[in-house]
Amino acid sequence: MRTLVLGGDGYLGWPTAMYLSARGHDVHVVDNYLRRRVHAEVGSDSLIPISPSLPARVSAWREITGLTITISEGDLTEWPVVEQAFRDFSPDTIIHYGQIPAAPYSMMDRHRSVFTQYNNVINTLNVLWAMHDMAPDAHLVKLGTMGEYGTPNIDIEEGWLEITHNGRRDRLPFPKLPASLYHCSKVHDSTNIEFCCRAWDLRATDLNQGVVYGMETAETRLDPRLATRFDYDEVWGTALNRFCVQAVIGHPLTPYGKGGQSRGFLNILDTLRCVELACLNPADPGEFRVFNQFTEQFSIMQLAELVQGTGREYGLDVDIQPVENPRVEKEEHYYNAQHTKLIHLGLEPHLLSETLVETMFGQIKRHQDRVITDHILPKTTWRGGSARATANERELVSS
Amino acid sequence: MRTLVLGGDGYLGWPTAMYLSARGHDVHVVDNYLRRRVHAEVGSDSLIPISPSLPARVSAWREITGLTITISEGDLTEWPVVEQAFRDFSPDTIIHYGQIPAAPYSMMDRHRSVFTQYNNVINTLNVLWAMHDMAPDAHLVKLGTMGEYGTPNIDIEEGWLEITHNGRRDRLPFPKLPASLYHCSKVHDSTNIEFCCRAWDLRATDLNQGVVYGMETAETRLDPRLATRFDYDEVWGTALNRFCVQAVIGHPLTPYGKGGQSRGFLNILDTLRCVELACLNPADPGEFRVFNQFTEQFSIMQLAELVQGTGREYGLDVDIQPVENPRVEKEEHYYNAQHTKLIHLGLEPHLLSETLVETMFGQIKRHQDRVITDHILPKTTWRGGSARATANERELVSS
Repeated sequence: MRTLVLGGDGYLGWPTAMYLSARGHDVHVVDNYLRRRVHAEVGSDSLIPISPSLPARVSAWREITGLTITISEGDLTEWPVVEQAFRDFSPDTIIHYGQIPAAPYSMMDRHRSVFTQYNNVINTLNVLWAMHDMAPDAHLVKLGTMGEYGTPNIDIEEGWLEITHNGRRDRLPFPKLPASLYHCSKVHDSTNIEFCCRAWDLRATDLNQGVVYGMETAETRLDPRLATRFDYDEVWGTALNRFCVQAVIGHPLTPYGKGGQSRGFLNILDTLRCVELACLNPADPGEFRVFNQFTEQFSIMQLAELVQGTGREYGLDVDIQPVENPRVEKEEHYYNAQHTKLIHLGLEPHLLSETLVETMFGQIKRHQDRVITDHILPKTTWRGGSARATANERELVSS
Repeated sequence: MRTLVLGGDGYLGWPTAMYLSARGHDVHVVDNYLRRRVHAEVGSDSLIPISPSLPARVSAWREITGLTITISEGDLTEWPVVEQAFRDFSPDTIIHYGQIPAAPYSMMDRHRSVFTQYNNVINTLNVLWAMHDMAPDAHLVKLGTMGEYGTPNIDIEEGWLEITHNGRRDRLPFPKLPASLYHCSKVHDSTNIEFCCRAWDLRATDLNQGVVYGMETAETRLDPRLATRFDYDEVWGTALNRFCVQAVIGHPLTPYGKGGQSRGFLNILDTLRCVELACLNPADPGEFRVFNQFTEQFSIMQLAELVQGTGREYGLDVDIQPVENPRVEKEEHYYNAQHTKLIHLGLEPHLLSETLVETMFGQIKRHQDRVITDHILPKTTWRGGSARATANERELVSS
């Protein structure tokens, strides 16, 4: 397969590029290092050191495996970048990770919310037009998020819902209650992609992914130069990753509010396999297919307690000290989301275990001196008062 | 009331500004003449001549009525424009018409689809942040469109739907199947506004408007300098307006395909009253309220037949010659949309009649020499092949 990996320098993009390259795909990566730049600008960083650039990464990959991954360094909101990647590489599959993925970032201030929506919506539009113009039979595998659905009081289906209303019936897009302006941007993408499949007969799979944890894959383990980034800060980090770092450095775990927020979670290894399964089983022409991509549901407090319990056995004294919830979200709610379609395609989940958490402790310990403690606790609030103050203390990301 | 009318130079914006000014509102208008520029660039124009600028319009308004409407000439995607309007004017109501309203324009080519979504999504985000920062208790009255819903096989409710699923129940946003990338942009706006009401306790009313017809209001009739624009071309015109122009100039009426497409319609007089009713009865803090703003449902063929019948009595020989449908849409479908909320607030509809069509004939006849026949028939197709060719023949709109 000729597989274009957009955003292939990121936490998931880079491991995906290597994983598919190792399995015989021709892989071309596009990235503009946005994720690296925003970290540099606010003073946070990946816990695990990563190679300084895509050329360094693909050259290490070639040295170690003999395999070639080609690259473009460019911004997907710029049409010439997208056009050239499609024209020169002629993909049959496009995996689109190339987006700003952070809810807190999008809620910091006006500039960042506009930049998040601009970046995500416009670069997906560019990809859709590139498919329309140059690759009408290719398959788009787009990373969405479970956060698009929010927490409705009904079971969450995979993208579509059979609705009976006043005696009539239709299959319609599942109603969304996104949880931040970032999550809104992903809903916008889903709306645009569904329309383009309907109007242009494009093929697309929207992977509404849960919260990913883990830091290693078979390929990142081959050499330190192939490592992927690992973020634990309040803006770019995810809950389990952050709790593990807190446990190791002796900081209390800080669930937001009551910690009753339930979400879907998955191991980074399962992300790679899910994306591969989507690529190997493409959507039909005109089909907008949605998979809910996670393997288990937990509440945030359950995760904290798992990390606490594992820490005790590991010899860490782990406290749990909830902090005021900076987000606007329900802290106790019904949550039951379907996630059978990827299982039916062959996914065999790596379930969360104390063993995995212990492995993460070990890896974090090795890089413990790199932890930047200033950026762990939440400074960004959804209500905006203090968000504005916080934002003013930081440098703006230039778009 | 202190009422900010965004997009107050447009077909509906300018009559709304006068209507509210006449009824005692302090009105401030913002517009960047985008609508005028895109017409100038492609060579189409309003059938009815309009005053050359906002200063000319408000000065005529003051001369004739003694009333003052203040203005800003500026682009709402630029934050300083929005910030200054909010800071200087301190609105308690914001009526947001300031968007690109054309489905065909958004389907012409990549550049125009990106520009449509950029303009609409970013300017609404700016308005939401301005409310968050400077007018948290103000009421946003946002023009949406019935085209956000598409044509589902169930009754269309007003924005929200009570859903029972697997024995559980919730009230969720009505699922949308937008009909073009323009309509997608309005769905994006609805998603963003709903989220901001939920997160920031803002008040908003989304007016999902049907297709507007008519060319005169009590205020536009006061003086030719107060006239509003009237578009009949394939990009910016709407069906009934176009059919009336075709009838007068002796061109066959050109429904798209079978003409079985059903939509909601309303008289421009009812647009003004609906917007006023929304302003006078604001949403509660945190409430995202949706009204379906139309008064009657017709199929496109029913409209064509009404114009044909009226033409016969008026002495016009009107033929109906369907053209190939340039859009991707169902030509025969179920359609039943609720529209009771504005009636409950006091709307008394002006229903469509032969008398109204005759009045439109008379007005069109007076300006018949201004009809530009080249721009009536569809050149823009949803599938894109010929859209690209067509777009290349035109000048691009510079954003």
